[in-house]
Amino acid sequence: MIVALAGGVGGARLAVGLAAALPPRALTIVVNTGDDFEHLGLAISPDLDTVMYKLAGIENAQTGWGRAGETWNCMDALAQLGGETWFRLGDKDLAVHLLRTQALRQGKPLSEITRMLATQLGIKHEIVPMSDSPVHTQVRTASGVLSFQDYFVRRQCRPRVRGFRFAGARTAQVPPLLQKIIGSGKVKSVLICPSNPYVSVAPILSVPAIRAWIDARDFPVVAVSPIVGNVALKGPAAKMMRELGSEASALGIARHYGGRVDGWVIDRQDARLAHAIENTGRSVLVTDTVMSNRARSTRLAKKVVDFAQALARRSK
Amino acid sequence: MIVALAGGVGGARLAVGLAAALPPRALTIVVNTGDDFEHLGLAISPDLDTVMYKLAGIENAQTGWGRAGETWNCMDALAQLGGETWFRLGDKDLAVHLLRTQALRQGKPLSEITRMLATQLGIKHEIVPMSDSPVHTQVRTASGVLSFQDYFVRRQCRPRVRGFRFAGARTAQVPPLLQKIIGSGKVKSVLICPSNPYVSVAPILSVPAIRAWIDARDFPVVAVSPIVGNVALKGPAAKMMRELGSEASALGIARHYGGRVDGWVIDRQDARLAHAIENTGRSVLVTDTVMSNRARSTRLAKKVVDFAQALARRSK
Repeated sequence: MIVALAGGVGGARLAVGLAAALPPRALTIVVNTGDDFEHLGLAISPDLDTVMYKLAGIENAQTGWGRAGETWNCMDALAQLGGETWFRLGDKDLAVHLLRTQALRQGKPLSEITRMLATQLGIKHEIVPMSDSPVHTQVRTASGVLSFQDYFVRRQCRPRVRGFRFAGARTAQVPPLLQKIIGSGKVKSVLICPSNPYVSVAPILSVPAIRAWIDARDFPVVAVSPIVGNVALKGPAAKMMRELGSEASALGIARHYGGRVDGWVIDRQDARLAHAIENTGRSVLVTDTVMSNRARSTRLAKKVVDFAQALARRSK
Repeated sequence: MIVALAGGVGGARLAVGLAAALPPRALTIVVNTGDDFEHLGLAISPDLDTVMYKLAGIENAQTGWGRAGETWNCMDALAQLGGETWFRLGDKDLAVHLLRTQALRQGKPLSEITRMLATQLGIKHEIVPMSDSPVHTQVRTASGVLSFQDYFVRRQCRPRVRGFRFAGARTAQVPPLLQKIIGSGKVKSVLICPSNPYVSVAPILSVPAIRAWIDARDFPVVAVSPIVGNVALKGPAAKMMRELGSEASALGIARHYGGRVDGWVIDRQDARLAHAIENTGRSVLVTDTVMSNRARSTRLAKKVVDFAQALARRSK
């Protein structure tokens, strides 16, 4: 059993490769819910949906979020009625939010709802939210503390970042399935997808049961660097690193995670950094990490899994 | 000031004529909310929306409900996800339900929300729900007590009707604007639109403050018969009348309302019934009542208003 920790786009790209490389019983994808928020009275789980749509093969490849072949007639009507339209919800996408919201109001846990939605979309692999209770990522900025979507969508990551808070993390309810996996002792490795370290992976690691499990591990943690060259392939990770005084590079990322990661997968472009990362006590695999299509995702996923298995053998 | 009581399609047709015939300050349209229900977690007010869309000129003329140029991508996606699709919500239509639901959850009264929506849609005349608190029409049938939408949409009016209940009517909160109009003494007449007597008009009259006001009136009540020949132009009114042992005709309708209506407007097709209705003590106007387009709605509305004014003068 391999557990992958995933945020949005980068996470979904590796997750779809892992799902192609591994049978359903050998992979569980744990997804960040720190971005979740209520909007227009609907419960929105952006990262869960990005991963789910990608695994179902119905994702919008252009935007990185939402569904392919989407229409925006509800949003247009909402604009006409003076409603809020800064967070765009497509007509097809709305169906997921309506069902999720209704089921949450009926008291169903988010993990059960996610499984129901994924099953309906024909997804065979387990997608599990990091928490069944709300955890809210808040961004401390020069303009004050902002809720994640306010920072990310409405202000388009412009405010200078000073730090992060994950409200509700301390009392987060780990979904029963994840609890079972943690307790099983059967996990061979944890893979950290190339997702934003601060707002995709950190919220997952802020859940005490997950953090404690990883910190007391007898399996390797392997991470794929979300920084290639000096840029994040998607999103504000590089900008955040610079604003927090870190070097925006695969080395900076490795330093950020420190002893919580045992093996790093970095891009060929960053081969020159391999030695410096190894000097921090980590193993390094240099390969092509840019997942510009599904075939590349699968190829990378296989290499990451092999690398993790090699590390597991070595530590025995 | 004229007050019109309206249900869905028939009500909307006369309302749009009245709005063309009268300035905004001279007309208030009170709309049935007995059909309101929650579906997919959304607060749906079918009659309010039918009247609102019609007055805004964006109604779907084919269906009689919903918006023109509608798309169904959310419903299609919902079907794919195994959600309920027996009650069809169009993509544009959803915007109204989202805004209404969110505003209700924030504690805003339905009348205020309705005014906001109508204003955004450019409607100048007042559309007021009969109640700011929920009133639920329930249909007693041979198959048990059914909620209105279950009877009307899901079972397509098939069960045999035995009676009706309006849950919540006794404690209904009359909207402040309607309360003010009732207390003003300035109403010159109440018009009952050609809406279903049992499930459109009766719920409005089930609100104690409205019923008491009308029963103690010093102005005429004029009604347009929803039955022409032996059929209802829209909906199950004729079927219901027969199932309840009434004659499905303009005369049967006049008998049903009894002393609560002072003047009847019936179609030329039913001219032969005028004398029998007059014999029950009511005044009768025979004219073209079939509102197959806006011009006909306006022509009928003007005649109804003139008839009501003549009755008011006569009673002085």
